[in-house]
Amino acid sequence: MKIEPLGDKIVVKRLEQNERTSGGIYLPDTAREKPQQGRVLAVGPGKMLADGSRAKPQVNEGDRIIFSKYSGTEIEINQAEVLIISEADVLAISN
Amino acid sequence: MKIEPLGDKIVVKRLEQNERTSGGIYLPDTAREKPQQGRVLAVGPGKMLADGSRAKPQVNEGDRIIFSKYSGTEIEINQAEVLIISEADVLAISN
Amino acid sequence: MKIEPLGDKIVVKRLEQNERTSGGIYLPDTAREKPQQGRVLAVGPGKMLADGSRAKPQVNEGDRIIFSKYSGTEIEINQAEVLIISEADVLAISN
Amino acid sequence: MKIEPLGDKIVVKRLEQNERTSGGIYLPDTAREKPQQGRVLAVGPGKMLADGSRAKPQVNEGDRIIFSKYSGTEIEINQAEVLIISEADVLAISN
Amino acid sequence: MKIEPLGDKIVVKRLEQNERTSGGIYLPDTAREKPQQGRVLAVGPGKMLADGSRAKPQVNEGDRIIFSKYSGTEIEINQAEVLIISEADVLAISN
Amino acid sequence: MKIEPLGDKIVVKRLEQNERTSGGIYLPDTAREKPQQGRVLAVGPGKMLADGSRAKPQVNEGDRIIFSKYSGTEIEINQAEVLIISEADVLAISN
Amino acid sequence: MKIEPLGDKIVVKRLEQNERTSGGIYLPDTAREKPQQGRVLAVGPGKMLADGSRAKPQVNEGDRIIFSKYSGTEIEINQAEVLIISEADVLAISN
Repeated sequence: MKIEPLGDKIVVKRLEQNERTSGGIYLPDTAREKPQQGRVLAVGPGKMLADGSRAKPQVNEGDRIIFSKYSGTEIEINQAEVLIISEADVLAISN
Repeated sequence: MKIEPLGDKIVVKRLEQNERTSGGIYLPDTAREKPQQGRVLAVGPGKMLADGSRAKPQVNEGDRIIFSKYSGTEIEINQAEVLIISEADVLAISN
Repeated sequence: MKIEPLGDKIVVKRLEQNERTSGGIYLPDTAREKPQQGRVLAVGPGKMLADGSRAKPQVNEGDRIIFSKYSGTEIEINQAEVLIISEADVLAISN
Repeated sequence: MKIEPLGDKIVVKRLEQNERTSGGIYLPDTAREKPQQGRVLAVGPGKMLADGSRAKPQVNEGDRIIFSKYSGTEIEINQAEVLIISEADVLAISN
Repeated sequence: MKIEPLGDKIVVKRLEQNERTSGGIYLPDTAREKPQQGRVLAVGPGKMLADGSRAKPQVNEGDRIIFSKYSGTEIEINQAEVLIISEADVLAISN
Repeated sequence: MKIEPLGDKIVVKRLEQNERTSGGIYLPDTAREKPQQGRVLAVGPGKMLADGSRAKPQVNEGDRIIFSKYSGTEIEINQAEVLIISEADVLAISN
Repeated sequence: MKIEPLGDKIVVKRLEQNERTSGGIYLPDTAREKPQQGRVLAVGPGKMLADGSRAKPQVNEGDRIIFSKYSGTEIEINQAEVLIISEADVLAISN
């Protein structure tokens, strides 16, 4: 299966919220804006700029990211649930 | 029949939602933002940029795409129901 | 009579909705966003760009178009009712 | 009296709505967006562009125009009631 | 006293509404958008453009102007009440 | 203590409202948009422009300014209450 | 642990609100817009500009900053609670 996100879209696999990661990051469930950890599976060509060229995305395939919990659209690929979100919904890369 | 979408518009034929595609993508009916699969029938010249030139569309005629379910306008061409949507409503190409 | 639309405005004569056109396009009355077919009678010089030049319109005089039903302003020219709409309300050219 | 409209503003004298003009244009009172005919009395230097220069207005002094009925500000010049509107409220020139 | 308006701001002294000016302009109290006449006392350096330079204001110190009645902020200078408004609230110069 | 405002922010010390200043400016308490006088204590590097450079601020450290009363954030520096506001909230310099 | 904020995002550790800092800054709890002091732990590459390049952030790692209290997203890194905020939520650097 090949999936190519449009523009600044990325495909993300959710990571378990309740594991305290080796990287030491923990995302409390009670946070005001609930953040979510995930693994980037695919990255679009980047947001279109005013001159028609593409902005190079900051995230790369394989990155572990923190993103806004309520963003994106759920789809299922090969029986695994993934999300399509915009790079603008990503807060940080936490490799 | 010839149909030429304006700007960043594209003409899409909806694909059945409940078939698990060979590509392994399944779009659950219970998803928060309901996505939809389709086949691109026609592509406009692209969104007009600030200098009057056109942005090259990322989707091409024949592409299988995932797009937001509630976007676009329904019309009927040769007794087949199709949709005119904006490329901005496309989430990913899933060829 | 000479009518010159401003900027990206165009003058359109509505075509009958209930005829299945030779081009095979049919616009169902029950569509969520009601589309409308029309014939372009006059085209403005195009939308002004950021540098003051004009964007070349994609539609041309004589084109058969599909546009959003509830857009534009009705006026009467030589006892025929026509509409002034923006090119941005045009979905596709269906010659 | 000299009146110089700012930027993209123009000064317009309303024309009678109920006369079927020689140009054959009639503006029905029942139209969804009520249009209005007028004669352009004065034209500003044009809308300021991003680089500080001025966009050349499409309308000229003396033009007969169709514009949105509910736009603009009424003032009285030499006992005649006129309107100051933006060129963006003009739909078409109907000389 | 020296007052230097910021950016596109100007300082205006209101003129009596009910005098029919020598210029022949009269601003009816019943107008939908109530206009107001005034005299320009001070002009800012102009609106900042995208490149950081300033747009040359169209109004000059001493100009008699027509502006939107409900715009601006009232202050008192040397016991005289004046207004600070944006040049964008000026409709026309009526010298 | 060193405080460096971000971008177009400035630090302002409020001046007494009820003193009729030597400059002759008086800000009535009943004004529709309540203005406020202040002294500029610190100026940021200026608003970021589209190309990443900074717009030179019009206000300078030490300027007496008139600004919108309800703008900004109160903080206390060396037991004195000051405000952090945007330069866009400044109406005029009244030195 | 390595955390790389996206774009104009920064990671901030909150500082105690009730200590009157050596820098002499005190942030009253009763302020209309509650400000907050913090220490910058990580800075993103900067906001993307229109041409796809990055704006150099004004804040640097290690800076003591004043920012809007209710901005950002809480996460926990190595058992310490931190915030991810946008540089646009920073009011001043108070080193």
